[in-house]
Amino acid sequence: MSIQQLFTTPLRVVNVGIETFKDVCEQYAPPAIQVDWSPPVDVSPAAEACLAKNAAKIDTANQKVMEIILSGTPHLIGLDIARNVIPGMTDDTILHAGPPVTWDRMCGPMRGGVMAGLVYEGRASSIDEAETLAASGTIHYAPCHEHGTVGPMAGIVTPSMPVWILKNEAYGNLAYCTLNEGLGKVLRYGAFGDEVTRRLKWMETTLYPILKAAVAHTGPIDLKNMIAQALHMGDEVHNRNRAGTSLLYRAIAPAILATCEDKDDAIAVLEFINNNDHFFLNLSMPACKATLDAARDIKGSSIALVMARNGTDFGIQLAGTGDVWFTAPADVPDALYFAGFSKDDANPDIGDSAITETGGLGGFAIAAAPAIVQFVGGVAADALRYTHQMYEITAGESRMYQIPSLDFRGTPTGIDVRKVVDRNRVPVIDTGVAHKTAGVGQVGAGLVNAPMAPFAQAYEALAKLLKR
Amino acid sequence: MSIQQLFTTPLRVVNVGIETFKDVCEQYAPPAIQVDWSPPVDVSPAAEACLAKNAAKIDTANQKVMEIILSGTPHLIGLDIARNVIPGMTDDTILHAGPPVTWDRMCGPMRGGVMAGLVYEGRASSIDEAETLAASGTIHYAPCHEHGTVGPMAGIVTPSMPVWILKNEAYGNLAYCTLNEGLGKVLRYGAFGDEVTRRLKWMETTLYPILKAAVAHTGPIDLKNMIAQALHMGDEVHNRNRAGTSLLYRAIAPAILATCEDKDDAIAVLEFINNNDHFFLNLSMPACKATLDAARDIKGSSIALVMARNGTDFGIQLAGTGDVWFTAPADVPDALYFAGFSKDDANPDIGDSAITETGGLGGFAIAAAPAIVQFVGGVAADALRYTHQMYEITAGESRMYQIPSLDFRGTPTGIDVRKVVDRNRVPVIDTGVAHKTAGVGQVGAGLVNAPMAPFAQAYEALAKLLKR
Repeated sequence: MSIQQLFTTPLRVVNVGIETFKDVCEQYAPPAIQVDWSPPVDVSPAAEACLAKNAAKIDTANQKVMEIILSGTPHLIGLDIARNVIPGMTDDTILHAGPPVTWDRMCGPMRGGVMAGLVYEGRASSIDEAETLAASGTIHYAPCHEHGTVGPMAGIVTPSMPVWILKNEAYGNLAYCTLNEGLGKVLRYGAFGDEVTRRLKWMETTLYPILKAAVAHTGPIDLKNMIAQALHMGDEVHNRNRAGTSLLYRAIAPAILATCEDKDDAIAVLEFINNNDHFFLNLSMPACKATLDAARDIKGSSIALVMARNGTDFGIQLAGTGDVWFTAPADVPDALYFAGFSKDDANPDIGDSAITETGGLGGFAIAAAPAIVQFVGGVAADALRYTHQMYEITAGESRMYQIPSLDFRGTPTGIDVRKVVDRNRVPVIDTGVAHKTAGVGQVGAGLVNAPMAPFAQAYEALAKLLKR
Repeated sequence: MSIQQLFTTPLRVVNVGIETFKDVCEQYAPPAIQVDWSPPVDVSPAAEACLAKNAAKIDTANQKVMEIILSGTPHLIGLDIARNVIPGMTDDTILHAGPPVTWDRMCGPMRGGVMAGLVYEGRASSIDEAETLAASGTIHYAPCHEHGTVGPMAGIVTPSMPVWILKNEAYGNLAYCTLNEGLGKVLRYGAFGDEVTRRLKWMETTLYPILKAAVAHTGPIDLKNMIAQALHMGDEVHNRNRAGTSLLYRAIAPAILATCEDKDDAIAVLEFINNNDHFFLNLSMPACKATLDAARDIKGSSIALVMARNGTDFGIQLAGTGDVWFTAPADVPDALYFAGFSKDDANPDIGDSAITETGGLGGFAIAAAPAIVQFVGGVAADALRYTHQMYEITAGESRMYQIPSLDFRGTPTGIDVRKVVDRNRVPVIDTGVAHKTAGVGQVGAGLVNAPMAPFAQAYEALAKLLKR
């Protein structure tokens, strides 16, 4: 184009950077478009140079990790009591969501969950007694993730709780998760009291043995297939699990009939599941955990295998950095709050459920579940946009989990910390919101962005390992 | 714009009409876009003038019809045997899909269904004997639609068949439909033989009494709500019913447990439903029938209350033209054919299931179920396009049935024959495809356009009535 042409043809502006420049253009000139771009995250030039130099090596490692993740085949193989099966679980162990946290740094809902758990275990006869015991040093707190386990919200697992057992049939590793309690006053949102304890006891004495017998009767249930179907049915299997719950229900109801001698109990179990469209969440989460755990300790890989929050800190782990947690303070979610509650009541982001996003589901697959963005005041196009953005920071696409409205494109899978840093784009996470005070429970649900700091730390740490 | 400007600025072409003109433009000039427009259908100037003159009157009548359709509340209230409940059903009656048709004009699969029905009833001991009886004049054939009933594909209802009973609670009218047999060798696709008869007998003696007791136990089930949920879960409740079937299953399984004394039979019933994702179709169809029938005989209305095919003719009825059928030969669907079959094997379009499109579901709601267009080789954008096109020919939008990917816009509802004619745009229908020969069964599934002729006839007939 000649200079002359430049001044005789209409100006069309594409702006990269500060958005106000585009606004000024629009005042004086024809339409301008804003490129969705942010400057890269501020990481050390040494780390940047190291990762650039080792790009091919990292790519190879990531390829290996992605092959493991994409070929994982999580199956539900049974149920048992936590103390019998979770590795390293002692009578004094309480597992919790997110990265490690001590009692004194625990947020309100996690403390509430711990206290509810101690009352449920019969270790304390009141919440006050439970609080004393919880702070006494007797109890060993550990992240679920470090015991092959995941837990939604507070993620509290005590020794007597029944757990689902999942096996990644392709790689042989196991994963565990408690059974979902439903909504209302529930331990995972930090609520306690008779209602909470009674339900947990019923789950242990009625729900658990009936489900255990039913799953023994059906044989292993292919959860990868079930999640894939659920995505075709409007779930993203994090904040929306109606389809997954329905498909699980269909799969096990005949087995419950076949194996349960007490008709009233069998009906109660079916009704319990039918009344809780989140029941499947506690299977989609360990399905992702089992899938991702198989790719641990692949040297040089920049793929995240864990994103988890304890309500105080947000932490991540990479395939290439072993068991190290990279953490930063958890943010308070932008959410739709229940009547009578606001962001002031909300606890910062909490729960292991971000394992679904880490596995290419949840917020990453939200285009499959536009109902969720509507729930928080967005539109269907927002859901598409979130999923499209996640393709920018992932290393691959699922071969099994698909988004119908994107012509069955595989969901964005395998968060590459390099892309997160380079594009200055953090993962988007669907989430429930707990009240910040122990004993209250859920106050909302919404979307939250992961903080950037853990990704930047992981980036630096990977560089240091690669330099050795 | 001055003449000079016209020749100095880039030419941008918008073409209306013959599309090749646009193609020529594109060879020599910048991009041209084609307006999706067809000349109006050739109807008589007198009818056109009459409908134009009476536009306000028709609009008022249509408003009344739409209010009835949009406020209909179909509930499942029970089951019974056809002869006990379907009005006018005698021991010699066989109901069939679509507009009226005599034995000699019946297509292969409908004949197959009739013969299978006579063997099932014990009226004939072989298919040959059944054929003789079917042609003898003893049997009274009548459209399902004229007996408050709808039937998928051949739509055969014989006196001993169990039927769902639905009530439009808002208006008190009832509708009926047989239970879905599943896939494979089934009567509704014109198949016959021992397998078909055995299944029908099991449905009558085991499935029916168990479901009847279960529905009596649950009380009325709100199908409008269930269909609305199914649309949020990827169904359009015509060719895709996985979600609807799941939700129904969840609703009745506990009641089956509570009421069925024979454990093996209860399990068999649950497995039968679980193995047939089309089970809900035979509820979504009568739900539409019950909803639309409440709006019959509203003088002056140009809204279609029935679209139905008997495999020979395609017929429609309007709210404003009473019980008159407007018919034309049914087309052979463009479909995805099962291995070993082609369009040459296919019977023309058949079944009352187009009642779902008439009620704003099925093909009209296909944007909610992109999986279906993929099944016939299309893409998600095609599904959106079909639904958008149906907004052009409908009088309103559902207040309950919504399409998530269109930000929960109500489905296009209430086919206005004026708009069909003016826009030269016919309804799009999801459909299964039967082999043209009796006894074979299903050979494919796909999409079909309604023929224009019945709409043009209805247009003329409405004009004649308005002139009186």
